[in-house]
Amino acid sequence: MMKENLPSDPAAPAFLFDLDGTLIDSVCQHVLAWHEALEEMGLSLAVWRIHRRIGMSGGLFVQALGREIGHPVTDELAAELQQKHTAAYRRHRQGLRPLPGAPELLDRLSRDGIRYAIATSGHREVAEPSLKMLGVRPETPAITRDEVKRAKPDPDLFLAAASRLHVPITIAMVVGDSVWNLLAARRAGCLGIGVLSGGYGKEELERVGAYRVYKDAADMLAHLDEVGVRIRN
Amino acid sequence: MMKENLPSDPAAPAFLFDLDGTLIDSVCQHVLAWHEALEEMGLSLAVWRIHRRIGMSGGLFVQALGREIGHPVTDELAAELQQKHTAAYRRHRQGLRPLPGAPELLDRLSRDGIRYAIATSGHREVAEPSLKMLGVRPETPAITRDEVKRAKPDPDLFLAAASRLHVPITIAMVVGDSVWNLLAARRAGCLGIGVLSGGYGKEELERVGAYRVYKDAADMLAHLDEVGVRIRN
Repeated sequence: MMKENLPSDPAAPAFLFDLDGTLIDSVCQHVLAWHEALEEMGLSLAVWRIHRRIGMSGGLFVQALGREIGHPVTDELAAELQQKHTAAYRRHRQGLRPLPGAPELLDRLSRDGIRYAIATSGHREVAEPSLKMLGVRPETPAITRDEVKRAKPDPDLFLAAASRLHVPITIAMVVGDSVWNLLAARRAGCLGIGVLSGGYGKEELERVGAYRVYKDAADMLAHLDEVGVRIRN
Repeated sequence: MMKENLPSDPAAPAFLFDLDGTLIDSVCQHVLAWHEALEEMGLSLAVWRIHRRIGMSGGLFVQALGREIGHPVTDELAAELQQKHTAAYRRHRQGLRPLPGAPELLDRLSRDGIRYAIATSGHREVAEPSLKMLGVRPETPAITRDEVKRAKPDPDLFLAAASRLHVPITIAMVVGDSVWNLLAARRAGCLGIGVLSGGYGKEELERVGAYRVYKDAADMLAHLDEVGVRIRN
């Protein structure tokens, strides 16, 4: 029996990676940076409540903040907060590290010709040093907050990333640590893979639609077969 | 029909509170302090892996660390690490705050004559400023790592706290944010109440035995009836 003459890999899986908490070990630093920015402005929000909102769109974050502090946050206040966060995050930056296995996972996919992109709710200015630390190649699409109308949990970032890869969104798989990523994946119409490296529990990620959950990038790399990647020998 | 002539409250519930992540918003600061202490010693452990071990006994933490770094951690190394953590935590201390509702909850219980104690896997030196920040009264029993042989998830801290309150452990209820607290509660033979303020998800806390899960101390204060507390009018 002859094998079908399939083109080499137009239907092979393509991965859309979140950045903070998925590839970079930066969640605590982001949390404390928001906490410091808020305190500088005389606002108070418990660290754990910030933690659970890392990775969501800044606009939604500010809206949630308004509910907590009891009055809407003006655009001016929001802009000042964003600025203070960026400055505070810079102070915490020396502690940033790639998550275990993240550079190796990206390298493996590159060498095997598997398409992937990065899609983050963060601004380019904040994302750039992380991309550099991971050794992300210049040809790898990296979509940031600056390039879309709405960040996660809206699907825009992942739709833009898939489009940049020339891949139908339906064969793409989002890899992310937070419920915002997995919710955005469902809204985009693609599969979602969870990683525990951002601090969310397995049950939460499964509940919002992750069809697999790995401990971290290293664990995903060790199980690429489970997500449909055929390794070249 | 006459009411039974019950003594006023020997069978009323008593609460054994965890400290970090339950009453004090300190988990991220502890995590970064461990991360910095490890890096100063040339050791590397991802922040999220540290996060999930906050609140467990230092001895077990070091044992887990040994597995991650591939060789056992000597007593000297462990002592040095502990010392570096304390110093690093002191650097992060200015960002510490009580968790929402924590001082109010303790105050309410005091005014209603409900017995409670604090039980933390941390050393007294580290716990003392947090107890002060919460306004914990000197007559409130506060058991630290220094006073027991084994910290959580062993039951020693909670057993010691109940004994200090002269309360049978079976009528005590542990209130904690981490799986270590709830596991120690089960091993001690008492009920467990979870709070989300340390970053664990509801499902995880329920799975390890929490019979109720509240968002934070403020949320528990608003639902004291659910945990069997009769408020005096």
